[in-house]
Amino acid sequence: MVKAGKQQVNVGMVGYKFMGKAHSNAYSRVNMFFPDAPAAPVMKLICGRDRNGVQQAAEQFGWQGYVTDWRELLRGDEIDLVDINAPSDVHKEIAIAAAQAGKHIFCEKPLALSLADSREMFQAAEEAGIKHMVGFNYRFAPAVQLAKKIISEGRLGTIYHFRAWFLQDWILDPEFPLVWRLQKAVAGSGSHGDLGAHLIDLAHYLVGGMEEVVGMSETFVKERPVPSSMTGLSAKGSADAPKGKVDVDDATLFLARFAGGALGSFEASRFAAGHRCKNAFEINGSKGSIRFDFERLNELEVYFTDDAADVQGFRRVLATDPAHAYMDAWWPPGHTIGYEHTFVHEMLELMQAIHEDRQPKPNFADGVNCQQVLEAVELSVSERRWVKVNEL
Amino acid sequence: MVKAGKQQVNVGMVGYKFMGKAHSNAYSRVNMFFPDAPAAPVMKLICGRDRNGVQQAAEQFGWQGYVTDWRELLRGDEIDLVDINAPSDVHKEIAIAAAQAGKHIFCEKPLALSLADSREMFQAAEEAGIKHMVGFNYRFAPAVQLAKKIISEGRLGTIYHFRAWFLQDWILDPEFPLVWRLQKAVAGSGSHGDLGAHLIDLAHYLVGGMEEVVGMSETFVKERPVPSSMTGLSAKGSADAPKGKVDVDDATLFLARFAGGALGSFEASRFAAGHRCKNAFEINGSKGSIRFDFERLNELEVYFTDDAADVQGFRRVLATDPAHAYMDAWWPPGHTIGYEHTFVHEMLELMQAIHEDRQPKPNFADGVNCQQVLEAVELSVSERRWVKVNEL
Amino acid sequence: MVKAGKQQVNVGMVGYKFMGKAHSNAYSRVNMFFPDAPAAPVMKLICGRDRNGVQQAAEQFGWQGYVTDWRELLRGDEIDLVDINAPSDVHKEIAIAAAQAGKHIFCEKPLALSLADSREMFQAAEEAGIKHMVGFNYRFAPAVQLAKKIISEGRLGTIYHFRAWFLQDWILDPEFPLVWRLQKAVAGSGSHGDLGAHLIDLAHYLVGGMEEVVGMSETFVKERPVPSSMTGLSAKGSADAPKGKVDVDDATLFLARFAGGALGSFEASRFAAGHRCKNAFEINGSKGSIRFDFERLNELEVYFTDDAADVQGFRRVLATDPAHAYMDAWWPPGHTIGYEHTFVHEMLELMQAIHEDRQPKPNFADGVNCQQVLEAVELSVSERRWVKVNEL
Amino acid sequence: MVKAGKQQVNVGMVGYKFMGKAHSNAYSRVNMFFPDAPAAPVMKLICGRDRNGVQQAAEQFGWQGYVTDWRELLRGDEIDLVDINAPSDVHKEIAIAAAQAGKHIFCEKPLALSLADSREMFQAAEEAGIKHMVGFNYRFAPAVQLAKKIISEGRLGTIYHFRAWFLQDWILDPEFPLVWRLQKAVAGSGSHGDLGAHLIDLAHYLVGGMEEVVGMSETFVKERPVPSSMTGLSAKGSADAPKGKVDVDDATLFLARFAGGALGSFEASRFAAGHRCKNAFEINGSKGSIRFDFERLNELEVYFTDDAADVQGFRRVLATDPAHAYMDAWWPPGHTIGYEHTFVHEMLELMQAIHEDRQPKPNFADGVNCQQVLEAVELSVSERRWVKVNEL
Repeated sequence: MVKAGKQQVNVGMVGYKFMGKAHSNAYSRVNMFFPDAPAAPVMKLICGRDRNGVQQAAEQFGWQGYVTDWRELLRGDEIDLVDINAPSDVHKEIAIAAAQAGKHIFCEKPLALSLADSREMFQAAEEAGIKHMVGFNYRFAPAVQLAKKIISEGRLGTIYHFRAWFLQDWILDPEFPLVWRLQKAVAGSGSHGDLGAHLIDLAHYLVGGMEEVVGMSETFVKERPVPSSMTGLSAKGSADAPKGKVDVDDATLFLARFAGGALGSFEASRFAAGHRCKNAFEINGSKGSIRFDFERLNELEVYFTDDAADVQGFRRVLATDPAHAYMDAWWPPGHTIGYEHTFVHEMLELMQAIHEDRQPKPNFADGVNCQQVLEAVELSVSERRWVKVNEL
Repeated sequence: MVKAGKQQVNVGMVGYKFMGKAHSNAYSRVNMFFPDAPAAPVMKLICGRDRNGVQQAAEQFGWQGYVTDWRELLRGDEIDLVDINAPSDVHKEIAIAAAQAGKHIFCEKPLALSLADSREMFQAAEEAGIKHMVGFNYRFAPAVQLAKKIISEGRLGTIYHFRAWFLQDWILDPEFPLVWRLQKAVAGSGSHGDLGAHLIDLAHYLVGGMEEVVGMSETFVKERPVPSSMTGLSAKGSADAPKGKVDVDDATLFLARFAGGALGSFEASRFAAGHRCKNAFEINGSKGSIRFDFERLNELEVYFTDDAADVQGFRRVLATDPAHAYMDAWWPPGHTIGYEHTFVHEMLELMQAIHEDRQPKPNFADGVNCQQVLEAVELSVSERRWVKVNEL
Repeated sequence: MVKAGKQQVNVGMVGYKFMGKAHSNAYSRVNMFFPDAPAAPVMKLICGRDRNGVQQAAEQFGWQGYVTDWRELLRGDEIDLVDINAPSDVHKEIAIAAAQAGKHIFCEKPLALSLADSREMFQAAEEAGIKHMVGFNYRFAPAVQLAKKIISEGRLGTIYHFRAWFLQDWILDPEFPLVWRLQKAVAGSGSHGDLGAHLIDLAHYLVGGMEEVVGMSETFVKERPVPSSMTGLSAKGSADAPKGKVDVDDATLFLARFAGGALGSFEASRFAAGHRCKNAFEINGSKGSIRFDFERLNELEVYFTDDAADVQGFRRVLATDPAHAYMDAWWPPGHTIGYEHTFVHEMLELMQAIHEDRQPKPNFADGVNCQQVLEAVELSVSERRWVKVNEL
Repeated sequence: MVKAGKQQVNVGMVGYKFMGKAHSNAYSRVNMFFPDAPAAPVMKLICGRDRNGVQQAAEQFGWQGYVTDWRELLRGDEIDLVDINAPSDVHKEIAIAAAQAGKHIFCEKPLALSLADSREMFQAAEEAGIKHMVGFNYRFAPAVQLAKKIISEGRLGTIYHFRAWFLQDWILDPEFPLVWRLQKAVAGSGSHGDLGAHLIDLAHYLVGGMEEVVGMSETFVKERPVPSSMTGLSAKGSADAPKGKVDVDDATLFLARFAGGALGSFEASRFAAGHRCKNAFEINGSKGSIRFDFERLNELEVYFTDDAADVQGFRRVLATDPAHAYMDAWWPPGHTIGYEHTFVHEMLELMQAIHEDRQPKPNFADGVNCQQVLEAVELSVSERRWVKVNEL
């Protein structure tokens, strides 16, 4: 499927669940829809600890082979790029080893469980001189790209407000079991690191760095049934199961002051009934405003103060026109794309960066910046005070 | 309440139910919110056949006196303006008598039960040289005024499509009783004359005249319980009540070709579950489009083809700015108005027209034009063919 | 206009601008639309310092007479109820005098410029044994009443989140002049007291009391042209005008923890381009969620977790049915009401409370509670820390 | 990529432009996302007349080989399934030959340029005993599947109204060139066959057969520049180009009476400014209503009359839950899918039908039924009368 003469990037991927599926799909689509991309991923090896599971995933997702120890991916020259989407607590070890082996790295967010770890990863990657990317895929929705373009071109003027929410409701039921995402040792944090991290990265991407934050967290349901088995998000418990302690946050909110002067408001919650996956933001500037909601990811609402006085109002822009990033490659205007397409665009950026010998965006530096704000908020919550981001 | 030196227009009103209440409110508000209006209505006399009912209405709505025979309104010089909002089957007699007595007339829609009758009324009014107005109040929503302005200024270019719906669901229940609005002898027709008439007038106002139509009607529930008593729309029947025949349409749809070349689609129904009062239209032209929905009457959605390529989309304009008709008189931007305000604006137009010695808009000519299309559609339904509007 | 035998409440009103107009309209409508109300306001006297202005207002709004010194309203027995809607800095003096004169009081929000003042007012009113009410009119939108009903009946379960925004954009232009609302000495505060106060009252009404808050404020445009003249919100300056310092907040955000365990997020801003008057909130509970936006005040969005699994989603409820508070008195379902109707409902509550010899809701106690949170936030902003509401 | 032991279906595809790309994507995704499907397509051969073009498409889309004469696909046993997505004027010849060669057929809509042709195709397919499917892909949006489920389970009661629009604006510019879709000889008709066909199929699927129709057509721009070259929808002309006659409809509207008693209203237009691809319908029944808009294809709006009286309203259902068709195979709730996914689901139905030895739905019979209504409308337009669908 790869054009003769095109640079090939051999991929070895660690992880094969939700993100593994999304990445596999992206690797196999990017060539078809972006045939002019200067480099093309080749799906060489997939890695997982469970032999049956990974074998089945390899077959289903279209990988040429599979291994059960990620170290095998680092031997020799077969693999050019290591894709890490295993649980967050193993990111660091794999990433540093991969960097030292001279492999490019694509790592899912959060980069690591702590700021210190993510900084080590960044340093290792920089010292190795490899390309590194972090999986903040929401940047790659065409509507978000449009938001970035509008802001960069100064069409919103000075930014005054950024407010964002990532609202879900999948653990609203108190009988929902104590899955790994609700355990601090594996997940690092709850809604804050899982959902809030995306909001922070979008804020960095669109508005810039923050100076200080103050936050608040809560765990509404403090004990949950220990699950007998689980797969991804869909674990099943039983009413008789013993209960275990939930030690991550169900919801975290924080206020922020941006370096550029804007005021920020952030809220991540898994207890917002009716919201399956509302990752939404609004930005108000001196010349206009924009709004985005991931549940309608093909749309951006845009307002300009210099519209004629009698027809001022938010426009619902369907970001599926040739004027919108990536959309020429897909379908005619009005034909929408979905969640998984953000990963295809992400992989396109990665292929282009590798070919052009530059760092892709977002890379580990962005992962570190996000982690810094996450920890600043955690510190603010525990010490009940405003925290300067650069304290950390 | 009326400024010294301002022209006073003494009103005598026939009818005191739903429309009587809306008109009374309008007469008593217009001076307060439009103090610079050149003329002011004075609520002299209200008329109804039931003495207790009309007496109570006079007191409740703020009329100086009441009578039980409309002919009393026509005697002498006390009354300048006769307001007719009694049931449709008495419009003609009262209007012609009022005209002959030299009174100005405000008549609720539909002007009459037939085209012939409405033409007689128009002729009588013209011959008498009085001012006449018909109650197509939806024209007076600021968002509809904005639609008119945009079209008149050529900002939509050539009009290609007009589509409109007036959808309600208040008789969806087959046990809802056989109220007067479901009886042809009193109401003339069902959804067609009650709801479709508003759509036709809006089409005339915004797009212009129609050349030909073809339509379809249906009565979904053909028998209903005869009500023991009724008040306005809220009659109550009983399960044991005898059933009577519904001889008006529950729904009428028609297609139309406008003189200007646009294609029209119209639908009126009282069987559209979930729609309490969706009086909505959309217009597409060569340079843009507009959309309106009465359930959100403060809003107009507007699209322009010459917006920048990356931010094209329907704008939701909240028509509450000083740039929008009438809104300076009410509240600050963003503070919405409701249904009854359309009547206040209507009465303002009437006062201005009387003072300026010109016909108000819409007047009986507009009522006749509407009736002509209504009957053309009815003929089309009965003869199952396209009908030229000027056949009638 | 008042039914024989009905209790009459003679009103004397101080103030005749924006709020004076809204109140006047409400007093003159409440009898017409709620004829069964047990008491009726009589518009006796209106008061303003400018003789020409108040005389004109009296005539335009329909008051029987006018005075230029509010103390005249307190003499003798003519007046039963004093309505205070003059600028906030005079509320206290008038209210305490009125209470001591044994008059019932309706006072616009904010009750006073400080918590201490508002407590004095509350104490004076209680000691005098009069009825007192504060003008948090948004409670009286039928959709907000529906929200209250749903929560009170337990249909949302335990409340986890309350988030609210009051966003406007009328001072976005840096050349907009330094009107009184931007001067601390007269207005007390900026967006916080003007807009945030409404959000706090809605939070109290719907979710209950708060325990602690942490906030952030900003004045984006720090100097503005001094206006040559002004009327309400629509002052006009000139480019050459000298500049003066803006000493109130353009935007204030805060986080809160409710006594019931819910997390709160509040944002008030006059720098949110595209929002004329977005007073909106969302509440998430264990059994469902609700959303409201004042720009669509006839609507409430509602979500229930126990809806059938395949049709779960936010419902857009048009709160114009007989099942919704007050709507029987207005128009048929689907016929919307506007901003000013909230005042009519407010006055109805006041009339009912006076007749039933009970305190109306919301009363001065609610005004005090609101002021307490406002000041707690201000203290939090100035001391950069979490503040317990009961510290104050 | 295909599981050992799973039935393989070797595909030969004719056409490699817009639909060829969509089908190729679907064939390569169906195994990955629906690993339990009982049969799996194998992308054997792609066919196109231009050798360079088809070779490139084969490589880009992942076909094992290519041919330039579709007859080669019919030779021998290599190919099990012939996929026809070449221009409409060649459907018939290829389909009949494929059927006679014993190949299963997937044919894009419209099945043929005439009712007579489509009937021949249906007959040939039936006589050959092969499986045949027609590409009405919109049926396969999960939200449309939900609509079907709700109706089939009787949750809307008796259907009273079906109204549908397919609105686009890509030829609004009079300088847009005379591409093949605007030429009757190749395309058969304009908006009617291209867009209206989808609406008719959805009506058949959701509400059932129609008895009679009456319609209206218009070509707003009657001459257009002849293009120098073209690719898909994106041909470019020049201002100096000679003009040619547009002999297809720019817009077609029709009314219909369904066999079940419902009233139908249909509108297809390419002149609806602001609508890129609004394929939308609403259905009103005695117990509720549903609404769909393809531009938000993950959503279905649903209303039920038996909701509690105070919370009646259209629900916005995001059809991404496990309770919704196909969604278990994709991503967690709230993660939306796009246009191309409808084709994946379509191919899944085809694989299942082949494996289960039954006809897939929709098949050529549905294609014939659609064509019958299309021609009935055309006859109605040309003879200016109501036409019974079974006249044809």
